[in-house]
Amino acid sequence: MIIKIDKVLEKLEDEIDIIKSKLIKTPKMISISDNLTSATRSYLKSQKKIANKYGIDFSVIETDDIVKDLNKYNNDKNIDGIFVSRPLKNKNYQEIDIARLLNPNKDIEGLSVYNMGEMVYENEYFVPCTAESAIKILENCMDLEGKNIVVIGRSINVGKAAAIMLERKNRSATVTITNSRTKNLKELTMKADAVIVAIGKAEYLTKDFIKEGTYIIDVGINFKNGKLFGDVSKDLYDKNYYITPVPGGVGTITSTILMRNVFRAAIKNIKQ
Amino acid sequence: MIIKIDKVLEKLEDEIDIIKSKLIKTPKMISISDNLTSATRSYLKSQKKIANKYGIDFSVIETDDIVKDLNKYNNDKNIDGIFVSRPLKNKNYQEIDIARLLNPNKDIEGLSVYNMGEMVYENEYFVPCTAESAIKILENCMDLEGKNIVVIGRSINVGKAAAIMLERKNRSATVTITNSRTKNLKELTMKADAVIVAIGKAEYLTKDFIKEGTYIIDVGINFKNGKLFGDVSKDLYDKNYYITPVPGGVGTITSTILMRNVFRAAIKNIKQ
Repeated sequence: MIIKIDKVLEKLEDEIDIIKSKLIKTPKMISISDNLTSATRSYLKSQKKIANKYGIDFSVIETDDIVKDLNKYNNDKNIDGIFVSRPLKNKNYQEIDIARLLNPNKDIEGLSVYNMGEMVYENEYFVPCTAESAIKILENCMDLEGKNIVVIGRSINVGKAAAIMLERKNRSATVTITNSRTKNLKELTMKADAVIVAIGKAEYLTKDFIKEGTYIIDVGINFKNGKLFGDVSKDLYDKNYYITPVPGGVGTITSTILMRNVFRAAIKNIKQ
Repeated sequence: MIIKIDKVLEKLEDEIDIIKSKLIKTPKMISISDNLTSATRSYLKSQKKIANKYGIDFSVIETDDIVKDLNKYNNDKNIDGIFVSRPLKNKNYQEIDIARLLNPNKDIEGLSVYNMGEMVYENEYFVPCTAESAIKILENCMDLEGKNIVVIGRSINVGKAAAIMLERKNRSATVTITNSRTKNLKELTMKADAVIVAIGKAEYLTKDFIKEGTYIIDVGINFKNGKLFGDVSKDLYDKNYYITPVPGGVGTITSTILMRNVFRAAIKNIKQ
């Protein structure tokens, strides 16, 4: 059974509308890239499309020196939100350098060191968008309190962030976070009420791992032979399992959260 | 069987010695309190004792306005490390206000928002001392890779922080974090290779929950009828279980980590 995301989308759009009604100017987002490959151009084109849909002023900034430019745009009052396109070309900079440098008030991806700390303290104004998307969809399916949730994959901005947000007060799930060294994954997933899978392996999760009635949030975006696959095998697309579709599931909500965050950043910008 | 902590202590003291040999001045730590009750005074007296043991210049600062004073000491080059005594008397300030305000470079308790974010990014220069203590002791007992570890309790600075640090690369444990809403705690703990218990309930964890051979890190410090108890019941003090003692276990290492962090802060201060 496919998990529907329309109610989650609707709520995000309601929040955008409320913020919009309070703003007197159009929010401004930039996507900064030192690596404008054709894949990146295509991705940023779709970002522009959704930004325009929500009435956001959107520009791509090409740079040779991402740190110098981030320092500049961090302090530019005309810019509300900054998206940093990955992967970086300049290998002198790591993810953590960007995460330390980016102005937390403009951090629409929720990846800055400071905002990760706020997440640990259970404040979720700007948190990693994909993790937030997975949780928002899951919360719309079930009351998380006391549920056993297994997170497969521990990337900082997806698996780890989702686990941190799931166990917090007001959600109170019992969370197990697994990784490639986990010895008893099947035993864990077989007892789960829900599984979030974010390991980036096409069709990894099969019926062998999952009991009927389990909710599965598929965060994977994998291309194989030019076709798009999630991390969940098609054998689970069956009336006895609940699964987010790929595409049209987590990714759609993630993009909308990114846009909602531009509006939130615009509110922050006014208050500075 | 009691888990011995001497090797963990020794390593911390070695790190202190190495830093000490590089410093030309005595590190300076302050403990700031707006609430000098007799319990706080007694705690700070023991803090002074251990600070003196390691050659740290230590003062207690009494304040009526913790935010004003933190702003002052944050920028005082003569102060290396700042400890904020809890609970705060002034209820206008929450933990998060202090965590946002404190200079991360002087954050010897590892509780600032910024340093929590660094922890998520797997950098552990200043992380919550009690969580670090629990992990250091456990790491000294076993290779954590692929082990099933259950963390009981999700306070931000103990359970949650420990869970985040256990699942990271270079440790790669499979971590389950439980809370008071967890429905199948016994089932989870019965399969654990190790349990970290940090819920603050005297003698909570009994033989019913734990299979023989399990390692148990007892973070509890509970007073009952004037006597000190951990979170682990005495019925587990038996040759078939491995347990950290209370007192003389996690608490001892935590205090030493706090002191080690003053030395680390002194190094940071030089580099500013």
